[in-house]
Amino acid sequence: MNLKKIRAAVIGFGNIGSYAIDAINEAEDFELAGLVRRSIKPLPERYSHIKQVENIDELGKVDVAILAVPSRSVYEEAPKYLAKGINTIDSFDIHTEIAQLRKQLAKEAKNHQAVAVLSAGWDPGSDSIVRTMMQAIAPKGITYTNFGPGMSMGHSVAAKAIEGVKDALSMTIPLGTSVHRRMLYVELEEGHSLQEVTKRVKADDYFAHDETHVIAVESIDALKDVGHGVHMIRKGVSGSTHNQIIEFDMKINNPALTSQIMVAAARASLRLNPGSYTLPEIPVIDLLPGDRDEWISKLV
Amino acid sequence: MNLKKIRAAVIGFGNIGSYAIDAINEAEDFELAGLVRRSIKPLPERYSHIKQVENIDELGKVDVAILAVPSRSVYEEAPKYLAKGINTIDSFDIHTEIAQLRKQLAKEAKNHQAVAVLSAGWDPGSDSIVRTMMQAIAPKGITYTNFGPGMSMGHSVAAKAIEGVKDALSMTIPLGTSVHRRMLYVELEEGHSLQEVTKRVKADDYFAHDETHVIAVESIDALKDVGHGVHMIRKGVSGSTHNQIIEFDMKINNPALTSQIMVAAARASLRLNPGSYTLPEIPVIDLLPGDRDEWISKLV
Repeated sequence: MNLKKIRAAVIGFGNIGSYAIDAINEAEDFELAGLVRRSIKPLPERYSHIKQVENIDELGKVDVAILAVPSRSVYEEAPKYLAKGINTIDSFDIHTEIAQLRKQLAKEAKNHQAVAVLSAGWDPGSDSIVRTMMQAIAPKGITYTNFGPGMSMGHSVAAKAIEGVKDALSMTIPLGTSVHRRMLYVELEEGHSLQEVTKRVKADDYFAHDETHVIAVESIDALKDVGHGVHMIRKGVSGSTHNQIIEFDMKINNPALTSQIMVAAARASLRLNPGSYTLPEIPVIDLLPGDRDEWISKLV
Repeated sequence: MNLKKIRAAVIGFGNIGSYAIDAINEAEDFELAGLVRRSIKPLPERYSHIKQVENIDELGKVDVAILAVPSRSVYEEAPKYLAKGINTIDSFDIHTEIAQLRKQLAKEAKNHQAVAVLSAGWDPGSDSIVRTMMQAIAPKGITYTNFGPGMSMGHSVAAKAIEGVKDALSMTIPLGTSVHRRMLYVELEEGHSLQEVTKRVKADDYFAHDETHVIAVESIDALKDVGHGVHMIRKGVSGSTHNQIIEFDMKINNPALTSQIMVAAARASLRLNPGSYTLPEIPVIDLLPGDRDEWISKLV
């Protein structure tokens, strides 16, 4: 074990931010430098002892910044910390933009001798490690990723923006072979009918491509549960042998898992050369604290 | 894609050796330099065009040697090729000796600017990657590895050595929580009773610790099936959130998977600095052919 602890700052105090604080507090090789927020506001009782600042410079030396911010904000936030030579970890989840963001952050990171680990949640993230491994061990075949049951933040936010919707929660239901059903629960605004809102939802690009059911409820708050899951399956060919079946399945608390993975990636970032990395580019053993040799005896 | 193909030699022509040839032939970035055997013997029809030699020097330049040899032989075989500057890949599966072998091969590899990837099968191997990832994403908890149903080579060989046993096949049956039953099928030698052989089997260290059933059959050959499987499950804690459940499951042709993983590891070996590595120490993306950027767009 290194005696010197990794000093991490958490940027943002949403769902991921608070769970990231928990994960840092539980990790013996980490020390929480503090919480960076756009503006300082009182924290819930159990977090009230934590140092809050608006500018990370007030926290002294920081090794790594956990960007607990919306994906869209990563473009702006990551370069800010990389420019100070601070490693950044994000859970950027817009799959189609990852390759591009990686290139952009590589430049910033290398210029300042820092490391950016991007898309370090569970999908993209740990699922990406498993998908990559599945591809390697059965090079021909099809991998299906089935999400849920669990809340989709993106779809819930998109639904809330629809006229007549006061609050919304979109559940992703796996139907197999990467096909999903959307169960959209809505609190209607007064003067709007379910029929009319349903029509708008189904015309929205977020919902137009999947089987979608819209259900009116009294209280969205009463439905909230951050549990989620994924089931990945690949049936493929190793060498010239067909019908190799490989599966991965999780039932997890979503923000708890995401922030735990971010903290593990923060640890790995200190062992990497300057640049930007997605999780499949990092040896998984570097996600663990302490000595490689000990883990090899235990886990290999 | 690199235009230059990876020249691989296969050492040994047992189960793994023949499947390794298949995996190399299916991999577009590889070229089979030839087969190295202790003594040259006729090959089955479908492999008859392959160049067989007793000494790897006869194959010209070779980048990597796939050691399709018994685990115990790795100690002697790997250094032989490393000394020639040829990378080695083995599927050494004696879990308790991996850490030690890794140190030994690191020295040989570094001395000759080569890379040794050891224990590159499925357990140890790809399962080790998953176990390591599970540990990282839920740092507290228990991981159970349940093998089978499938043939255990080690137990079958051990049983064959027992007095009164003409031939034997030991099936590993998973009972959950890493507990296994051994179903041992035996062909008895004339003049020996099942009762007497059963007694000897249960006294043998290979079988003494597990629930073991010994069954007499007419023909072991009629039972042979190289299908195997594994189910790993971890229930653990991410941050301070309990009850995170992560599972991995495979139903596979055992030698086909093992040799496919060895070939993927051979590819990765050419991207690593001199030294020795187990699979969790290698970025999974390096197991794949071609360009990182393309895979990141597809898999992350």
